[in-house]
Amino acid sequence: MKRAYNFNAGPSALPLSVLERAQAELLNFQNTGMSVMELSHRSKEYDAVHNSAKERLKRLMNIPDTHDVLFLQGGASLQFSMVPMNLLGKDQVANYVLTGTWSEKALKEAKKIGQTHIAASSKEANYTYIPKLEDIHLSENVAYLHITSNNTIFGTQWHEFPDVPVDLVADMSSDILSREINVGQFALIYAGAQKNLGPSGVTVVIIRNDLLERIPDNLPTMLDYRTYSSSNSLYNTPPTFAIYMLSLVLEWVEEEGGVKTIEARNQEKAAIVYEAIDASNGFYAPHAEKESRSLMNVTFTLPNEELTKKFLAEAKEKGFVGLAGHRSVGGCRASIYNAVPLEACEALAAFMHDFYRRFA
Amino acid sequence: MKRAYNFNAGPSALPLSVLERAQAELLNFQNTGMSVMELSHRSKEYDAVHNSAKERLKRLMNIPDTHDVLFLQGGASLQFSMVPMNLLGKDQVANYVLTGTWSEKALKEAKKIGQTHIAASSKEANYTYIPKLEDIHLSENVAYLHITSNNTIFGTQWHEFPDVPVDLVADMSSDILSREINVGQFALIYAGAQKNLGPSGVTVVIIRNDLLERIPDNLPTMLDYRTYSSSNSLYNTPPTFAIYMLSLVLEWVEEEGGVKTIEARNQEKAAIVYEAIDASNGFYAPHAEKESRSLMNVTFTLPNEELTKKFLAEAKEKGFVGLAGHRSVGGCRASIYNAVPLEACEALAAFMHDFYRRFA
Repeated sequence: MKRAYNFNAGPSALPLSVLERAQAELLNFQNTGMSVMELSHRSKEYDAVHNSAKERLKRLMNIPDTHDVLFLQGGASLQFSMVPMNLLGKDQVANYVLTGTWSEKALKEAKKIGQTHIAASSKEANYTYIPKLEDIHLSENVAYLHITSNNTIFGTQWHEFPDVPVDLVADMSSDILSREINVGQFALIYAGAQKNLGPSGVTVVIIRNDLLERIPDNLPTMLDYRTYSSSNSLYNTPPTFAIYMLSLVLEWVEEEGGVKTIEARNQEKAAIVYEAIDASNGFYAPHAEKESRSLMNVTFTLPNEELTKKFLAEAKEKGFVGLAGHRSVGGCRASIYNAVPLEACEALAAFMHDFYRRFA
Repeated sequence: MKRAYNFNAGPSALPLSVLERAQAELLNFQNTGMSVMELSHRSKEYDAVHNSAKERLKRLMNIPDTHDVLFLQGGASLQFSMVPMNLLGKDQVANYVLTGTWSEKALKEAKKIGQTHIAASSKEANYTYIPKLEDIHLSENVAYLHITSNNTIFGTQWHEFPDVPVDLVADMSSDILSREINVGQFALIYAGAQKNLGPSGVTVVIIRNDLLERIPDNLPTMLDYRTYSSSNSLYNTPPTFAIYMLSLVLEWVEEEGGVKTIEARNQEKAAIVYEAIDASNGFYAPHAEKESRSLMNVTFTLPNEELTKKFLAEAKEKGFVGLAGHRSVGGCRASIYNAVPLEACEALAAFMHDFYRRFA
């Protein structure tokens, strides 16, 4: 079997060793005579998986005791609603920085719940950059400031987080665990797993415990963070297999040397692909401004539609998967999450150089 | 490897052939060089999986064109809220039949949304029976009548569904696909997958299309059935691996001969276990009244706590898993969903007979 060069934006590449381990124990988990999917979520075997995922994430991200880790379902899209339902009080204003499609969607859901304010935006430039910290203008009575740490569609990423005197909430779906961050700086972080953490079907929420006291009563039980916090995310049946895969991916990150090592590798991988862009004299035109470039999603266009099609067709033939850009920006996108190996980036860069030499 | 006799209440046994197939193609799905978990949810390969799950369910359950099949997350517990959020209009009353813990939870969530009415209940008898059809008393201005078709904790099941002049909504989490039903009789059916359909992490909703017109505007996007209906359940990233497993389980049901065959086998399986109870002269005391007995969850107690502990300890030693009863009723419970083989029920009955002979 030849592994594809998987540049999918999510669901995306998983570490081969993780898949091999999942395969090896799929029929008989730890000599139980059952698949991990067949275990009761109240069994001691599943409990160990569940808690190991939680503890490993705490260790890897240096999550302080002030914060808790919750496992939910519904993806970041459900968090767009849950964040304001839980944290946006009456007379308060939810502040949003718009840096792309996902921030817009988050804002749209918050508007259904209460008052909102756009604290900064790069929409006028088709989201080619991340607003500067000094350009963030907060409203009065801020409930929280919401940012999208990495923008998959436009290929931009916050490299320094705003140091604001209000609760900072971040959608980190596409760059959680890709670099060292100070979790203590955030009131709440959420992330769908399907980019850096595992398969789709589980959403991680890291929440500062005191926020739980702000939650209004009478929310639907499954939409109240306290339900997950008070039950160790076991109020109802969790997505057990997705959490098992998450635990394996986290174990892999630990074995690889932790987030610091992964971050260095991600910088190396991104440098290789951006170099192919920068060496092309504008043949490959990056969507993002240089200082806002994402280490996770490299977005670029070719001189015309015909060349783009040719590029994508040749790439596909060579075993590169997922390189078509999102329809909002067109062109191409290479998503190079944690599990995408260095060799895949080298192969892509080599192909880009070659294609450039032939068609520029 | 010896397969466990898996009587878990959910997550529960999966067909061995399904697990073997998932294992065989876990690293390389249909020669893509990727795991099914690594496929984009916008790829043609995943699309085929997604649509095959939907089409197979339609075929197997004879779902009429008036109804649509949606894939959601959050389990039945989130449906407890979504049903009234979507279907309970102002000035309307949501009617509930209480037959156990899950109906109570469904009612509790509906109360947060609007007006409710208990149309019937067997709570006064600790849910040992399903109310008779003539004992259902509807309120005025009924939005819908909600029932729980099978009660995992108390081991009771509706054998005839109420023929009422209002929209009937059923939580079928624990007996969907276990017997032939007339889907056209229901306005909405929902079911977490982790009993008869697959692993946990995906929830199936079967909804009559005209209900979509009743949904109020401005619901959170992820809590609005129209979001799933208009996007073929692909508005955001679905739990792709769980849906893949669902498609394999449905394929297995088709290969086994469809729901009719499965139903006959379920009757045979349940008869074997109930016979062990009925032949014990009250040593094994069933929780459910005879005419309300569930074909999915067989609940019974032993004469005292000491014998119960002994029974469970011996059973565990012999490779029977998941036989402890829910704390609400105590005693024992054997969940014998579709994928639990006849042999497991025979082995359990043989053990029960033997234990009875030794300790009665």
